Amino acid sequence: MPMHDVDLIYKKTAVLYNRGQPHFASCTSLTQTCLNLLNDSAKYRYFGSYAGTPSVKYNIFANDNGVSRPIRPDLYIEDHQELATAQARMIKALGKGAADWDEKTVRLATRVIYTSVMSFACCIDLWKRSSRKTPGTFFEIYFAGLIPCAFSDALLSKHIPLPGVSKAEEDELEEAEETQDDGSSVATDLVIARPKFKSKIVIPLKITTRERIVQPFAHQRILDSAFGKGRYHSFLTCVSETQLDHKTQSVKQVCVPGTVKLFQKHLGQISGLYYCDVPQRYAAADMAECLPVKEIGEIFRDLGQLFNT
Amino acid sequence: MPMHDVDLIYKKTAVLYNRGQPHFASCTSLTQTCLNLLNDSAKYRYFGSYAGTPSVKYNIFANDNGVSRPIRPDLYIEDHQELATAQARMIKALGKGAADWDEKTVRLATRVIYTSVMSFACCIDLWKRSSRKTPGTFFEIYFAGLIPCAFSDALLSKHIPLPGVSKAEEDELEEAEETQDDGSSVATDLVIARPKFKSKIVIPLKITTRERIVQPFAHQRILDSAFGKGRYHSFLTCVSETQLDHKTQSVKQVCVPGTVKLFQKHLGQISGLYYCDVPQRYAAADMAECLPVKEIGEIFRDLGQLFNT
Repeated sequence: MPMHDVDLIYKKTAVLYNRGQPHFASCTSLTQTCLNLLNDSAKYRYFGSYAGTPSVKYNIFANDNGVSRPIRPDLYIEDHQELATAQARMIKALGKGAADWDEKTVRLATRVIYTSVMSFACCIDLWKRSSRKTPGTFFEIYFAGLIPCAFSDALLSKHIPLPGVSKAEEDELEEAEETQDDGSSVATDLVIARPKFKSKIVIPLKITTRERIVQPFAHQRILDSAFGKGRYHSFLTCVSETQLDHKTQSVKQVCVPGTVKLFQKHLGQISGLYYCDVPQRYAAADMAECLPVKEIGEIFRDLGQLFNT
Repeated sequence: MPMHDVDLIYKKTAVLYNRGQPHFASCTSLTQTCLNLLNDSAKYRYFGSYAGTPSVKYNIFANDNGVSRPIRPDLYIEDHQELATAQARMIKALGKGAADWDEKTVRLATRVIYTSVMSFACCIDLWKRSSRKTPGTFFEIYFAGLIPCAFSDALLSKHIPLPGVSKAEEDELEEAEETQDDGSSVATDLVIARPKFKSKIVIPLKITTRERIVQPFAHQRILDSAFGKGRYHSFLTCVSETQLDHKTQSVKQVCVPGTVKLFQKHLGQISGLYYCDVPQRYAAADMAECLPVKEIGEIFRDLGQLFNT
């Protein structure tokens, strides 16, 4: 039962999170357990490259069960002591305020977050492939755990009740609970409110976007329509858009820059798009004009600056 | 190889459709083959009911491989001679113009379309479960085949090129083809243009909507933003929203009226929502105020009236 400890700590972490209790220490403990399991029971090796300019190398974890998703070795922190140190530095830097973070601190945060989410995801890939959705849930839990480290007065939620919902509709909502019919509220992954600020932050968190990329833009449009522009700001936050290609022993980065530009122009304007592993075609100049795509560490700087204004 | 003939005719039909050639006769032939296969090699029997008011009975086809999706026996036409007659009457009624169809003709069209799509889908359920997406594709093909019977000058397509796409973006589109990145156009299931009419009709065709229901509303918003309101009208057209519940031997109708109202109010305004098997909760009065949900035969009457104005 290689996943016994991982399962146990994950469940404990999820319970704390669902109760709205502090859970970041539990996330840390989970990450360390995952790192140890991977180091002890899987082989970490080069898989292939993304054929961009410059090309990007990817590793995988492998065991008798198969292989994990691709991992950027320049971002992933293998050593558990090094991760612990990096994490402590990140938390300290978050506590001091991220508005003026330098590039080094941004990259530190990117690496810690990437390692934490990917180590858990790779364990699922190798030992519990049936739990396909768990890595995405852990990404939500982990990221929500970081926010109070940066903004101690932050109020976190996952729903935005819409104004003007009639009694009849509320009744329907109860009935609708069973079918996840969110007609009286917008359901997302993380909403951040702070007592002194009128604007609120919506953070959809996705391991990858695929065909679900329409959702954050549609939600932004609904929020603009229901509350007026400027009340809610969406920051779509992702891990990567990579796919193993076993035939060619390479890694693909699945991008839809045209679609993103289309949605940003005609559907809803989101305020930022962040990745741990920024897909190369999203870093292009024409994307920057429309919607800059940044590494995940930058979201804390951007949020810090937004809340300072 | 029970599916040999069905496979063969389906492939032939898809080739004709993809080439833009007349393919409705081929659809008819496919439907008859499916009906015969089901009648010869599967048992058609009562499964359970949807516990609404009034309750709705559902049948299934069953064989040694398992059971098909649920079928409304009051809509499904079992006898192949009866189907052939009903279909001929529908085609004749479409040719004479649907703007003034009575309820009987509307119901006739609903039953023929439902039987045609469901007979193929049930064959896939029983003998080729791996081809999960084929019934949806056949629904597109079949419905596109009906349109010229009603509007002989109709020009059909699946893409709406957006105005103001630069050369650079066009280049990207070529590259993007591989990844289905539709940033320079909106891709849908069916677009109907007629030479004398400035407005065009967008028909997303879905066996069921599930979480994809956001798409038609998002597309309508994008089209309104890109072309101005009133240029494109979307008619979301579906088969059913049913699910077998084996535990309780009943059928569920999965509805999200709250979400539909939310999207219609705050995201994009579609012009109609049609089902072969209208989910009961979508037939409620408060839905009718926001977006009337009608049976599929009515789309021809509505389109006929729209084109008459």
